[in-house]
Amino acid sequence: MYSLTVCDHIMIAHSFQGEEFGPAQRLHGATFAVEAEFRAPKLDHHQLLVDIGLAKTELRKLLATVDYTNLDDNSVFNGINTTTEYVAFHIHGLLAAACRDGRLGDGGRAVTALKILVREAPTAWAAFEGPIEQGA
Amino acid sequence: MYSLTVCDHIMIAHSFQGEEFGPAQRLHGATFAVEAEFRAPKLDHHQLLVDIGLAKTELRKLLATVDYTNLDDNSVFNGINTTTEYVAFHIHGLLAAACRDGRLGDGGRAVTALKILVREAPTAWAAFEGPIEQGA
Amino acid sequence: MYSLTVCDHIMIAHSFQGEEFGPAQRLHGATFAVEAEFRAPKLDHHQLLVDIGLAKTELRKLLATVDYTNLDDNSVFNGINTTTEYVAFHIHGLLAAACRDGRLGDGGRAVTALKILVREAPTAWAAFEGPIEQGA
Amino acid sequence: MYSLTVCDHIMIAHSFQGEEFGPAQRLHGATFAVEAEFRAPKLDHHQLLVDIGLAKTELRKLLATVDYTNLDDNSVFNGINTTTEYVAFHIHGLLAAACRDGRLGDGGRAVTALKILVREAPTAWAAFEGPIEQGA
Amino acid sequence: MYSLTVCDHIMIAHSFQGEEFGPAQRLHGATFAVEAEFRAPKLDHHQLLVDIGLAKTELRKLLATVDYTNLDDNSVFNGINTTTEYVAFHIHGLLAAACRDGRLGDGGRAVTALKILVREAPTAWAAFEGPIEQGA
Amino acid sequence: MYSLTVCDHIMIAHSFQGEEFGPAQRLHGATFAVEAEFRAPKLDHHQLLVDIGLAKTELRKLLATVDYTNLDDNSVFNGINTTTEYVAFHIHGLLAAACRDGRLGDGGRAVTALKILVREAPTAWAAFEGPIEQGA
Repeated sequence: MYSLTVCDHIMIAHSFQGEEFGPAQRLHGATFAVEAEFRAPKLDHHQLLVDIGLAKTELRKLLATVDYTNLDDNSVFNGINTTTEYVAFHIHGLLAAACRDGRLGDGGRAVTALKILVREAPTAWAAFEGPIEQGA
Repeated sequence: MYSLTVCDHIMIAHSFQGEEFGPAQRLHGATFAVEAEFRAPKLDHHQLLVDIGLAKTELRKLLATVDYTNLDDNSVFNGINTTTEYVAFHIHGLLAAACRDGRLGDGGRAVTALKILVREAPTAWAAFEGPIEQGA
Repeated sequence: MYSLTVCDHIMIAHSFQGEEFGPAQRLHGATFAVEAEFRAPKLDHHQLLVDIGLAKTELRKLLATVDYTNLDDNSVFNGINTTTEYVAFHIHGLLAAACRDGRLGDGGRAVTALKILVREAPTAWAAFEGPIEQGA
Repeated sequence: MYSLTVCDHIMIAHSFQGEEFGPAQRLHGATFAVEAEFRAPKLDHHQLLVDIGLAKTELRKLLATVDYTNLDDNSVFNGINTTTEYVAFHIHGLLAAACRDGRLGDGGRAVTALKILVREAPTAWAAFEGPIEQGA
Repeated sequence: MYSLTVCDHIMIAHSFQGEEFGPAQRLHGATFAVEAEFRAPKLDHHQLLVDIGLAKTELRKLLATVDYTNLDDNSVFNGINTTTEYVAFHIHGLLAAACRDGRLGDGGRAVTALKILVREAPTAWAAFEGPIEQGA
Repeated sequence: MYSLTVCDHIMIAHSFQGEEFGPAQRLHGATFAVEAEFRAPKLDHHQLLVDIGLAKTELRKLLATVDYTNLDDNSVFNGINTTTEYVAFHIHGLLAAACRDGRLGDGGRAVTALKILVREAPTAWAAFEGPIEQGA
């Protein structure tokens, strides 16, 4: 199995609902460093999994929709705690769709699985990984 | 699959038995930087895998039992070389038990697998990963 | 010249005033990874610059006053953009005072300079460094 | 499952064929930081997966065959774009053979899978992982 | 003293002249991860040293002149070994000029010193630092 | 001012004398990741500060004298707490002598200052820096 990973980051504000969160119930924020790992069982005839430039550009576009915002004000996350785990899941959905839609070229259409790892601090990070169901 | 990782470290002395170890047969030591990765197929209603604060506190408690010690003097490791691989395995056992026992809350009881990665130096590390058999 | 550095981090929300800031004028946030570097020309008779445990504890106390908060709501920063550069300067002031006041022990009183480096993202960070004027 | 990882790096020149590569069609180069992760379901009686010293020595030997060279001039890569993904695959083949041939000792013969991760830049890396078919 | 650092990288081919270089006399290459540290004794009224976005854009423009090239073919480096030390010095000259020329705004004109650190590998890097002589 | 940095690490056991050290009074150990930064105001005609290969080889030789040992048993450190600060100072003395003695070639004789940074853990490190008094 091959994999290719590209990185970017976002800087957001948010707060959490639930006593378990303690001080994180207050409005605070995070730099989320995002690593997007594309997986495929083989490379194309150029020996590419996905085009790195295209992958970075598309990831940036998707992240730009939430970068420099307060996630609490985003109706997409209505009633949902934007934990690091959930943010990884959310980005996974966006980038998987981009692969299926051809926004990452033929390479993206051949991606079979995607892992999004999100670092919230030097000592804590979360990830979501899952297969990409490519269309017929 | 979701994952959440928290980090800590210990500073220990030890030595190895066996000619293969060369100079590492002498009493020496290591900073073991520990990454504990919890995995689960879904999040709870708060969008949490395990509570990060609880995970860090419990990991610290477990590591404190060996931190700032000479592992050669610990009867738990009697006749066992405390290689980085083995230390990862050992911590895995302790933290898996904490998950099963409820010391990491309901989140810990929903953890299905655990990976312990231990960095011994900038250029070498080891890990042990395995499922957590949650009780009935 | 000797130096000793300890690390911690905070997760805050804030926004900036001024067109130069572009999208960062919106409420957003950051994980600020903080490195506090204490400098002194000599060590004490124990070969210590400052006690690492004491340094970490004091740094944590100072950071806790802003951790998990919206800096825009903090009267201390009234009318001030809490850029990474400024946050480094602010923490420098708090920790320098702790050194002078004896909160870091005799080691802290012997510190002659302090550098606070604050990482806002994997690709950008800022710092403030300056001498500590120890009292008579 | 246990794993053990050792690191090294190479500094090479190369160019790519294909319009998709844009400016990377020109002769350029890369520092490839290589992480070799050996996996096995159990440790030997010394609690070792593979001998770290032996693993580093063998990895260095294999990398030395391409270190400080222009990959475009290497007949092994004739007509093949030496993308980071492909370089990971290539090193995987060399190191898997070394495991099977006993060049990593009995530990190497017990390795069941190998992952080679190659970092081309702070924000991009690729990997190839696969089982090692040990001889009868 | 304040400082602000931004990062980028280039991927180049080159070779060295002189027996001291051993195998590095052959055509090879490097990923040079570049850290540009701007220093100034005070911030502007927005609490900025230099605008991070502007600094990153300008650094990218300067690096683009050599990115994905063979430095041996660049007349700028005619007869000069493009060691990591020298590359740091070269980038320093380009970025210092950009500060003086106003390409980094008023912030750039207030920069008093600049350090360029270039990482060639995880275990080796070089830097050049020096004052910026701002025009009258 | 130019600088060049090379890295290596040692794995040692030791203990500390003095109540201030708390649990670190017990025999424990550390991985000390060492960064040796050589400084000089100019490069030689090859555009080198010091030869990286030579610098790494010499650093390794000096570190080998304490690598995989218990520092408590080393008469060199008799009655001295081998804190991270002190270890940095100790290595500084050894490497400065190597520069002066010509063991790092003409480049080493032109080095005007040396900084040794020693990382004991991901969140704590110490350094000693000072001029090198080159002989007449």
